[in-house]
Amino acid sequence: MDRVAVAIDQRFDHFLTVPDDPRAELFEAMRYAAIGGGKRLRPLLVMATARLYNVEEKSALNAATAIEALHVYSLIHDDLPCMDDDALRRGKPTTHVAFGEAQAVLAGDALHALAFELLADEKTHHDPFVRAEMVACLAKAAGPSGMAGGQMMDLAAEKQIFDLQTVTRLQQLKTGALIGVCLEIGAILGRVPIEGRTGLRGYAHDLGLAFQIADDILDVEGDEALAGKQLHKDEAAGKQTFLSLMGLDRAKEQAQMLVDQAKSHLNGYGTEADLLRAIAEYVVHRDR
Amino acid sequence: MDRVAVAIDQRFDHFLTVPDDPRAELFEAMRYAAIGGGKRLRPLLVMATARLYNVEEKSALNAATAIEALHVYSLIHDDLPCMDDDALRRGKPTTHVAFGEAQAVLAGDALHALAFELLADEKTHHDPFVRAEMVACLAKAAGPSGMAGGQMMDLAAEKQIFDLQTVTRLQQLKTGALIGVCLEIGAILGRVPIEGRTGLRGYAHDLGLAFQIADDILDVEGDEALAGKQLHKDEAAGKQTFLSLMGLDRAKEQAQMLVDQAKSHLNGYGTEADLLRAIAEYVVHRDR
Repeated sequence: MDRVAVAIDQRFDHFLTVPDDPRAELFEAMRYAAIGGGKRLRPLLVMATARLYNVEEKSALNAATAIEALHVYSLIHDDLPCMDDDALRRGKPTTHVAFGEAQAVLAGDALHALAFELLADEKTHHDPFVRAEMVACLAKAAGPSGMAGGQMMDLAAEKQIFDLQTVTRLQQLKTGALIGVCLEIGAILGRVPIEGRTGLRGYAHDLGLAFQIADDILDVEGDEALAGKQLHKDEAAGKQTFLSLMGLDRAKEQAQMLVDQAKSHLNGYGTEADLLRAIAEYVVHRDR
Repeated sequence: MDRVAVAIDQRFDHFLTVPDDPRAELFEAMRYAAIGGGKRLRPLLVMATARLYNVEEKSALNAATAIEALHVYSLIHDDLPCMDDDALRRGKPTTHVAFGEAQAVLAGDALHALAFELLADEKTHHDPFVRAEMVACLAKAAGPSGMAGGQMMDLAAEKQIFDLQTVTRLQQLKTGALIGVCLEIGAILGRVPIEGRTGLRGYAHDLGLAFQIADDILDVEGDEALAGKQLHKDEAAGKQTFLSLMGLDRAKEQAQMLVDQAKSHLNGYGTEADLLRAIAEYVVHRDR
């Protein structure tokens, strides 16, 4: 994880050289949000999947940086006063607190575009088919049928009482879709045909839900200093979560069951998938 | 123009079917901003360029819709209270006024992703090389070295006094880059190699500046009812514009000179480029 985190920071540092003109503040805000901090779980998933198929390191790293750019954009926008109104993220003031709201909206927008620029770049992969497929995959997961749709449901959750099925759907869109993209893009870079991705998709599906249940548990049991963000927000907003719907004990059982199930989807792989297996365990045993 | 406007509305209607779930409000906000109204200048430029090379209508229309989706997203975000704080756009309340700020941010984000989804879609073009090149081109023009960078400069223009060179650079990034993409994507669809795009690039460059000078003139001389948005805002904000820097008479001369120059870049084309020539004249003689 540490090695991937360092490599992602280096890539962002490379792609976000601050220009000597009035756009400097935009680049500073993008760097502030993108560099340093974060678990870099999504890049790690891309790298671990690419490793299964001996994908060239540079390709995997650029694609991983693209996905992290998209993730960071979504964090910046989700934290805005009009959305979740969060003041702390990754242990430091959120981007709008540090730079102002307009700059935060723009930094998010610019990172959103950067994600697609990186995936479509010849330097990421020489084969246009691979580039176009990665873009199609990420765009679908980011849009109204993915992350943006999930965030809309999350806003609606403050006004409506959702049942377990609806909360599951919300989380599959809001966080599950992008986690799925990490595995998918690893497979696309590895030129795995659709019919060969069943195991990875099953893994991603179960991992995404386990991740979210663990997040809900951390929101209640976690340490704010370690989490680097404000906790207990869902409860205060009256939102239904996996925890409020299942209770703590069942939620913990369910998360571990999903991790075991996620790992079972990797049974067709040998030791080359050990990193993906370890990530699955990490996701429910992390403290942040 | 009318025919393209109808076709673009139909495409958005097709791509944005409102789902029967809590995401409905997001789709409604996207439809509100995207369907009906607007000059649809950018789609028209794509269609007019594609016509030079006998590009299939469906390909050109999907790509044109993608660029308009990106343009609409930028309007929604630019109108936000933290940005230009505009209440009126295309003759109706802006998206955040009609749906709330959170929904407006999200609708913009979702349209941003939709633009890339459309360009990367096999149904837009069968050749992945064409799809990947279109995505790369749009992503670059949308990001920090294009539109987002231009908007950052525009925010800075409220605090700094810009000279003509800096205002020109601002406008080339903020509006010129996306206008350039329209011509570029028409050429990519027409499989024109880079060295064959010089005329189109020259046309786009001059057209973009002429468009912006005309916009500055309309901001002072125009009719708010026709423009469908609040005018005289730059002056109130103390921003330097082409008009404030050149004066009305010189600005009008300069706009017409740029139009003539734009058309001269098309001298290598016959009557098939008449639509592009007419668009150039329209851009400085429009009343909205």
